[in-house]
Amino acid sequence: MVRLLGIDPGLRFTGWGVIDVEGNRLRHVENGVIATNSADSVPERLKVLHDNLMILIDRLAPVEAAVEETYVNRNGSATLKLGYARGVALLAPALAGLSVAEYGALSVKKSVVGTGSADKDQVAMMVHRLLPGVKVARADASDALAVAICHAHHRASAQHIAAGVRMA
Amino acid sequence: MVRLLGIDPGLRFTGWGVIDVEGNRLRHVENGVIATNSADSVPERLKVLHDNLMILIDRLAPVEAAVEETYVNRNGSATLKLGYARGVALLAPALAGLSVAEYGALSVKKSVVGTGSADKDQVAMMVHRLLPGVKVARADASDALAVAICHAHHRASAQHIAAGVRMA
Repeated sequence: MVRLLGIDPGLRFTGWGVIDVEGNRLRHVENGVIATNSADSVPERLKVLHDNLMILIDRLAPVEAAVEETYVNRNGSATLKLGYARGVALLAPALAGLSVAEYGALSVKKSVVGTGSADKDQVAMMVHRLLPGVKVARADASDALAVAICHAHHRASAQHIAAGVRMA
Repeated sequence: MVRLLGIDPGLRFTGWGVIDVEGNRLRHVENGVIATNSADSVPERLKVLHDNLMILIDRLAPVEAAVEETYVNRNGSATLKLGYARGVALLAPALAGLSVAEYGALSVKKSVVGTGSADKDQVAMMVHRLLPGVKVARADASDALAVAICHAHHRASAQHIAAGVRMA
């Protein structure tokens, strides 16, 4: 059994989700959203994000992390702010000694729904199907669980390849 | 006397500079560059940046930090990576309990050279004039000292305003 942490970072809302993987079986552990107050300074908001990530890693003890590389088509200033949150989201698991994988939105959709053209609702539906009974805090948490599921699939494939098993 | 830390963040090279300020007098303390290895993973590089910033804050004990908000006109991916480094650069002093100010490149040039149209050489020359005898590790460290000097000027102005002194 291996415990995985998925993170969908954002300065306002960072979704997170933890799942346990045993062979092909996935089990939901917990999910949530870290919100920061837009009235606070950016350094203060990054500290809130960092502190909460460190606390939840310590509490739930995942051994690997996966972070969504959100698609960027916005203006420079918005991209930079998203970058702050992603930088802090990549740093926290690295500080805690976890391996950290990154997946683009396309990889996540392909892995969870089977097609890169899936919309958010399809992803959320598949998250609920793959993790029966899950209650999701917000869309960001559902996306974070999707990243964790994507990582579970990729690491299984990597292990098959390493073991010399031919992939379908 | 107050000790200020200036940071010019980048994923490959982050410049830093520490100065002491007493009234109108500035004194150079130390400067340097934190380099990360582009062969390492991004989370690992962010950890190197974070750890080194925390160590130097602990060692030199500045009480306020100022971070340069680098002008962004590059592609989304480069902007995002710069964002990671800036996020980590804003986080470290916040974690250490320092106040953190941000200044755009234009503010830094205006404050150090007197005009926003100054080029990098003019900024470097004024840094050497304002901090006699300073030896600079790299251009990034000179830029970091310039941010620290900019912050010294702005905080002095803020104190004058607070004290009811009419500004020139």
